Amino acid sequence: METQTRQILEGVRNGSISVDEALMKMKSEPFEELGYAKPDLHRAVRQGYPEVIYGEGKTPEQIVGITRSLTKNGCERVIITRLSKQAAGEVAESLSISYDEVSRIAYTGNIPEPDGIGQIVIATGGTSDIPAAEEAAITAELLGNRVLRLYDVGVSGIHRLLAHRELIMSASVIIAAAGMEGALASVIGGLADCPVIALPTSVGYGASFGGLAALLSMLNSCANGVCTVNIDNGFGAGYLAAMINHMEVRK
Amino acid sequence: METQTRQILEGVRNGSISVDEALMKMKSEPFEELGYAKPDLHRAVRQGYPEVIYGEGKTPEQIVGITRSLTKNGCERVIITRLSKQAAGEVAESLSISYDEVSRIAYTGNIPEPDGIGQIVIATGGTSDIPAAEEAAITAELLGNRVLRLYDVGVSGIHRLLAHRELIMSASVIIAAAGMEGALASVIGGLADCPVIALPTSVGYGASFGGLAALLSMLNSCANGVCTVNIDNGFGAGYLAAMINHMEVRK
Amino acid sequence: METQTRQILEGVRNGSISVDEALMKMKSEPFEELGYAKPDLHRAVRQGYPEVIYGEGKTPEQIVGITRSLTKNGCERVIITRLSKQAAGEVAESLSISYDEVSRIAYTGNIPEPDGIGQIVIATGGTSDIPAAEEAAITAELLGNRVLRLYDVGVSGIHRLLAHRELIMSASVIIAAAGMEGALASVIGGLADCPVIALPTSVGYGASFGGLAALLSMLNSCANGVCTVNIDNGFGAGYLAAMINHMEVRK
Amino acid sequence: METQTRQILEGVRNGSISVDEALMKMKSEPFEELGYAKPDLHRAVRQGYPEVIYGEGKTPEQIVGITRSLTKNGCERVIITRLSKQAAGEVAESLSISYDEVSRIAYTGNIPEPDGIGQIVIATGGTSDIPAAEEAAITAELLGNRVLRLYDVGVSGIHRLLAHRELIMSASVIIAAAGMEGALASVIGGLADCPVIALPTSVGYGASFGGLAALLSMLNSCANGVCTVNIDNGFGAGYLAAMINHMEVRK
Amino acid sequence: METQTRQILEGVRNGSISVDEALMKMKSEPFEELGYAKPDLHRAVRQGYPEVIYGEGKTPEQIVGITRSLTKNGCERVIITRLSKQAAGEVAESLSISYDEVSRIAYTGNIPEPDGIGQIVIATGGTSDIPAAEEAAITAELLGNRVLRLYDVGVSGIHRLLAHRELIMSASVIIAAAGMEGALASVIGGLADCPVIALPTSVGYGASFGGLAALLSMLNSCANGVCTVNIDNGFGAGYLAAMINHMEVRK
Amino acid sequence: METQTRQILEGVRNGSISVDEALMKMKSEPFEELGYAKPDLHRAVRQGYPEVIYGEGKTPEQIVGITRSLTKNGCERVIITRLSKQAAGEVAESLSISYDEVSRIAYTGNIPEPDGIGQIVIATGGTSDIPAAEEAAITAELLGNRVLRLYDVGVSGIHRLLAHRELIMSASVIIAAAGMEGALASVIGGLADCPVIALPTSVGYGASFGGLAALLSMLNSCANGVCTVNIDNGFGAGYLAAMINHMEVRK
Amino acid sequence: METQTRQILEGVRNGSISVDEALMKMKSEPFEELGYAKPDLHRAVRQGYPEVIYGEGKTPEQIVGITRSLTKNGCERVIITRLSKQAAGEVAESLSISYDEVSRIAYTGNIPEPDGIGQIVIATGGTSDIPAAEEAAITAELLGNRVLRLYDVGVSGIHRLLAHRELIMSASVIIAAAGMEGALASVIGGLADCPVIALPTSVGYGASFGGLAALLSMLNSCANGVCTVNIDNGFGAGYLAAMINHMEVRK
Amino acid sequence: METQTRQILEGVRNGSISVDEALMKMKSEPFEELGYAKPDLHRAVRQGYPEVIYGEGKTPEQIVGITRSLTKNGCERVIITRLSKQAAGEVAESLSISYDEVSRIAYTGNIPEPDGIGQIVIATGGTSDIPAAEEAAITAELLGNRVLRLYDVGVSGIHRLLAHRELIMSASVIIAAAGMEGALASVIGGLADCPVIALPTSVGYGASFGGLAALLSMLNSCANGVCTVNIDNGFGAGYLAAMINHMEVRK
Repeated sequence: METQTRQILEGVRNGSISVDEALMKMKSEPFEELGYAKPDLHRAVRQGYPEVIYGEGKTPEQIVGITRSLTKNGCERVIITRLSKQAAGEVAESLSISYDEVSRIAYTGNIPEPDGIGQIVIATGGTSDIPAAEEAAITAELLGNRVLRLYDVGVSGIHRLLAHRELIMSASVIIAAAGMEGALASVIGGLADCPVIALPTSVGYGASFGGLAALLSMLNSCANGVCTVNIDNGFGAGYLAAMINHMEVRK
Repeated sequence: METQTRQILEGVRNGSISVDEALMKMKSEPFEELGYAKPDLHRAVRQGYPEVIYGEGKTPEQIVGITRSLTKNGCERVIITRLSKQAAGEVAESLSISYDEVSRIAYTGNIPEPDGIGQIVIATGGTSDIPAAEEAAITAELLGNRVLRLYDVGVSGIHRLLAHRELIMSASVIIAAAGMEGALASVIGGLADCPVIALPTSVGYGASFGGLAALLSMLNSCANGVCTVNIDNGFGAGYLAAMINHMEVRK
Repeated sequence: METQTRQILEGVRNGSISVDEALMKMKSEPFEELGYAKPDLHRAVRQGYPEVIYGEGKTPEQIVGITRSLTKNGCERVIITRLSKQAAGEVAESLSISYDEVSRIAYTGNIPEPDGIGQIVIATGGTSDIPAAEEAAITAELLGNRVLRLYDVGVSGIHRLLAHRELIMSASVIIAAAGMEGALASVIGGLADCPVIALPTSVGYGASFGGLAALLSMLNSCANGVCTVNIDNGFGAGYLAAMINHMEVRK
Repeated sequence: METQTRQILEGVRNGSISVDEALMKMKSEPFEELGYAKPDLHRAVRQGYPEVIYGEGKTPEQIVGITRSLTKNGCERVIITRLSKQAAGEVAESLSISYDEVSRIAYTGNIPEPDGIGQIVIATGGTSDIPAAEEAAITAELLGNRVLRLYDVGVSGIHRLLAHRELIMSASVIIAAAGMEGALASVIGGLADCPVIALPTSVGYGASFGGLAALLSMLNSCANGVCTVNIDNGFGAGYLAAMINHMEVRK
Repeated sequence: METQTRQILEGVRNGSISVDEALMKMKSEPFEELGYAKPDLHRAVRQGYPEVIYGEGKTPEQIVGITRSLTKNGCERVIITRLSKQAAGEVAESLSISYDEVSRIAYTGNIPEPDGIGQIVIATGGTSDIPAAEEAAITAELLGNRVLRLYDVGVSGIHRLLAHRELIMSASVIIAAAGMEGALASVIGGLADCPVIALPTSVGYGASFGGLAALLSMLNSCANGVCTVNIDNGFGAGYLAAMINHMEVRK
Repeated sequence: METQTRQILEGVRNGSISVDEALMKMKSEPFEELGYAKPDLHRAVRQGYPEVIYGEGKTPEQIVGITRSLTKNGCERVIITRLSKQAAGEVAESLSISYDEVSRIAYTGNIPEPDGIGQIVIATGGTSDIPAAEEAAITAELLGNRVLRLYDVGVSGIHRLLAHRELIMSASVIIAAAGMEGALASVIGGLADCPVIALPTSVGYGASFGGLAALLSMLNSCANGVCTVNIDNGFGAGYLAAMINHMEVRK
Repeated sequence: METQTRQILEGVRNGSISVDEALMKMKSEPFEELGYAKPDLHRAVRQGYPEVIYGEGKTPEQIVGITRSLTKNGCERVIITRLSKQAAGEVAESLSISYDEVSRIAYTGNIPEPDGIGQIVIATGGTSDIPAAEEAAITAELLGNRVLRLYDVGVSGIHRLLAHRELIMSASVIIAAAGMEGALASVIGGLADCPVIALPTSVGYGASFGGLAALLSMLNSCANGVCTVNIDNGFGAGYLAAMINHMEVRK
Repeated sequence: METQTRQILEGVRNGSISVDEALMKMKSEPFEELGYAKPDLHRAVRQGYPEVIYGEGKTPEQIVGITRSLTKNGCERVIITRLSKQAAGEVAESLSISYDEVSRIAYTGNIPEPDGIGQIVIATGGTSDIPAAEEAAITAELLGNRVLRLYDVGVSGIHRLLAHRELIMSASVIIAAAGMEGALASVIGGLADCPVIALPTSVGYGASFGGLAALLSMLNSCANGVCTVNIDNGFGAGYLAAMINHMEVRK
């Protein structure tokens, strides 16, 4: 940032840039105005990641428009989350995308080679937690991570989890996805010595209150190194895990 | 009940009891009126257990009065819960009681010989859960049960719990007391094949909301054979455990 | 468990098992990997009960797959809960199952002869609570219990309940299912001298908040010997009742 | 109201009152301005009852000031609720009041002869609910009602309540005060055929959430003829009961 | 009750009834067993009102069955609440009923002549509150009351309410139905000197949380003589109003 | 008001109006009775604005009826909010209206020339907040304000917002519409020195709880000059903004 | 902002400022670093108001330090809110301040001459709401507004409010402070045709839940032109009212 | 773990360890039994960090006992969190500890040289958030991290935050501590391209509900790479930040 400003200032000093041009340059922002959205064309550069579109509540036309704007400006890979199967079909008529039904993620381009520190383990308490877990898994894979899925290892049958204790011990980052009582995060947090991202899901009934029980349980985890994302926010969990798994690469 | 009524009716038939006397007898109830309370003098007989006084919110004078009324009517053992140390001191000036500071339970008479089916295991997630657990433990002991304490075995260090797996497998009933995320009940529920009573405690801070997180977590337990009592209700957990542990004796 | 480990160790000592084989054996767990689920093949043995599949959120194909895996491994009876009528029809094309529409429970095999301590009484406050109550009832029957249904005995017409006082007094375990204000559990808890499992239902409107009013009411019951399960968790109530009703048999 | 306006208008017509005087008169309101409060001097007339001061959060000086203003304007009886013992002592130095410690009610003048339709029954679930119940009872007595107290008849010992079934059947209005699970209102509502005012109290712990459990339970009562007032609002319950008990007198 | 028992006892004394017959008579209860419901055949007598069936969650067949059982046993008027238009059509094929679409109430027999103390005023804040208000109005009319409807007089246009001040002052009982902020009950409570039944409705959006805002507002009303029923519980409000409006008749 | 009353009084004094006529006039209110609604015909005059009909829960017939009544009484512009596309179609068959699909607002007459103090800026956090924002925008425009839309400037890409800092600094009033974490209001509140109306939207998932997270966030804003309206209440925000933007005009 | 940047750029062009100096100038921020706080020295200029310190949770030393830093930098008037009497005493030893006990506001300098558009009316429902109302009143006065207090005009005695209808009609902005059911805001909102700021207070008990009932009531107000601030946030209400009352001055 | 088991198995094979000894060894766990707690002596080794004692709710004697047990078993550094000043004084009489009053952390040994990937930035919204932030800061320093404090940079004065944009861009991990509306996490999350740990604090009043508003706000953050810990859980935030900042070192 400073470098850019310095260049402009030096341009002003040596007369190659007028004061008005300088003012304009310093205010101009790297995003494009589409009316209904302002795709952030430099974020990919700024944060070192593909651009992500939250698909829920956007029309297929809007998604196509934003994706094209991003692609036109040099973004190699666009990830679209929370895209219904039907909307994905409509988008696919205009754009070349891959679509995963379980996670409801679409993307342009290919899944890159994994290049992170280690392996991200994604565990679920039950089979119903798989959609949220897959949103995290595909996200992490699209961001260049090797992902190991460990599904249906809920704490009520603790031996299923303990049978994989070594996998857990060797992970770089772990995402623990669970609904109902959400105890999986605490148990994994106690077994592992790496960051654990707790992903509460809305799976359950009655007093689970749409994932609130799991969320509160995870926030109150007595294990160290555990943090929590929003209910069913698989994308957020996968994104953060990818970030942590690339700590050394980023430096 | 039927027997009593039959006796009265037969008295009416054979003329030994007048109709008015019969009407009176059939309405008279086995409780004594103290003005501020109606001690239930036949409950001990009716339910096969000592009488219990909830001490919180009662003055030492009221507690002494109710206890005397119960004792006078043949109740051998009176249990007083939620009694502060200071109130216990005042009660002890008028009555011969034993008092346990941790559980805040006072009682008249002695702890009976255990005679239940097996052994009640009481586990806690941390040391701060011990007061609620002790309320359960002392209650169960006063109701004739052998109690095994397994404290500070929270799920964030699962090996501490697993080291005692055989104890858990051999229990007759288990009480799992935990605050914070309350995951202990689910893990024990998965390990054990006996009834597990989940006892949420108000231990925690922030989003534990005074035990709500643990309560919701326990209600949503995905393990079979788990039920829940109110937050910090050690007495209720101990009483129910005692009842279950005397199932064969009761028949 | 110890016996198995001892056998392996003795095999190592006498040379019939190599160290590597022993390591492998000690880690191998008795569950089968289906990709989307890990049916726990030894739980039936470990906990003395049929295996249970939570049907909600699973496809008919997944249910058929898990049931076959369990049956192939010697599980005589599989219980599938929360199965919609339509899904049950699809499952029935591949598997021989019985299906009960009210409770939405399907199962393989027959209902066994009851062999518990006594009789489980299941009471409801109104007719709308019957589906949850039937989930409990069928579950208990499938686990070998005699069940007595006492429906529509809510506390606003207390004489309906009191007319059955002797049934209540003679029960081994009672399940009290109620929505709205959930007062049934407390009244029954005061009448009975056996464990009472409070089953809040989501029946009600307005400030019942989907069963929350009944749940809180039941958790705060002033009667002794009462515990609570999750809202509408008829299966959990029936399973726990069955466990308690087999206390003497299990020893 | 109409009469007053008519008189003014007739005064205008016959010239005894000028238009400006008439405008002024029609705006003047029968309350006195004390700066910190506007005692409503005509409410006693308008609603047929003594004036009531909510004592909490007012200084003894303010209470004395408002009471004097009311008395000076012809109000025979002033009721002060939620008055701490200490504040009552300070008020008593300036005013002649009676004070009841349990209900924390003070009042000027005497308790009137009861003149309502019948008798108001006030029942409590336990001894801890007595302060709220007494606030209702003293209020009703000060408003001219005969009150029958039926304390400690909670539903977990239903025979204590049933023993008084005839009292309940004969009441004109019933106030059912209970904390914890608040089931008393439903049971009484089913037994009685008169209006039942449910008075939730903040008695309880854990998931009673300061009376919320009892409040929700009472709002969801499946009995007919039940309504609810705010938690611990004994005054409101007593006032409404008095109003109902004077229905025929008022006509 | 006492009379009946006395007759039985005298029969026993004079030998016209055997002890066993007496025992049987004293236990027999006046309700009929339909399997899915226990219609309370004597409640009409016991409480002086028609029998009411809560229609929601019952099949047309069940409603027809219960209604026939009640009618057969002498109940002149049956009220069915929360009956959808479609269900009403199906019931009408088997039974002669009147049906009101707005209130969703059906009933057998005719609306009786009003005979209460005075007139019940039912006010609503807006037009969307009318269905709940009509449930109350029709209920009250079916229970023998004259009802005056005062709709769309919400407090944000206070002059609409004040224009009807005299109606309000002259009412015997008032029902104030409002959603959103529920302020209507307080304002009417301040204007009237008769009991006011606050009926919160689920009308609103956003932070009205399905009627919770109105409910809390009404429970906290600073006006005297106000009580509250459950959200959208028009029937409960109408029933209680009818009870209060018949206070003098009942004595 | 005073003028009207004075005129009546003077009429009484000079005999041109009888006392009874005067009484009648003083009570008559300027609203028309339609049975289902009481359109307030003088509000437009009283508050200086067009009349507004809340369309949700009203039938097209009712909307047409109320609109005609208002128009007939001289109301030039009627605004109908929360009108579905289908209902708008039906209304349009009877009335000449304009309809905007995004905001779901219909209106009679034209959008007036803006005449407020300055310009109202309406910002949204994302594209999904646009419907609520447009409800505010169209409302403000219909009330005579110039509106500048600044959409998709959420705080997670703060440079998008900062790029428009001058617009924000120059606004007369700002409406900040955001769901999810609702942080937009605080950031704008810190940048601007004009009133900021925070408009929480129900956009989000999981722990956004239908807009509750944004609502609480906005209520707790640490910026000065910020107030909050109900979740998704775009109309309320637009109306208040218009009122503030006409402060000098009104004097 | 642009002007400043332009001046710097022109200085660079004409050589009077070096590139490094320009870079430094453009980054330098007008706040002073005290370690524990960053007083914003230019905010007074930027927002046209005195600087405000939130006193709660700050030590008297910190308050003195921040105030001195602000004064030293040219801030004429510093307002300190939420200052306990004791803390005010300690601050007064080091600084010359005025302190108001009811509102708990301290300030340096004098109360300025009012110069706003009109008069701000501050109404309260009861006498207990006065502290919050006074926080708003003193704040508004310190910001140059004429304030009219209208206390104890709650809606349960609507004539007290209506007696002041003309004051309400003539206000420039109104603040409606109320606890309990918070209905005051809606009624005033309907009477007034100026912006109404609803100020919920924590006054109440039971189901008022610390002001939540009033807050929800106010957010759901059906009156137009009403917005809401946080519970007990008198400062926020007063600040916003002052801003609105200076709309024409600011242009 | 495998290595240890392999050694034991090889000992069995070669006869140096008997089967019973092997069984015993394999069950023995590296924790010491103190009765009231089970210090986990190998956790330091297992997780690569000092042992931590949660001080709240433990007596000074218990803290001294646990610390000594840990030290005796080779733990070089013990961290005690949530220790009151008074308790710290009592502990200091028996142990050589350092104590920090603001964060309420005590520790044995010295603060180690920082050796992580980069620098941890800890930002707060206001000065009242400093205690929670310091708990995080001291924790991170004790775990070998360089920490940069950026206090009082709340979003309502966004320029204070933007002035430090480069620090934020260069951080390895950021902890954003804020109460009230908690918007800081989202804004920082948008500026930074490293993991951001959101730390909600209980600072605030009214509708902040003890930190709930900030917690919900943070969970709903629309910025990528943000996760959340429990309210006021500075230790948890610091611990996780330390873990992430040592990602490359750990491999």
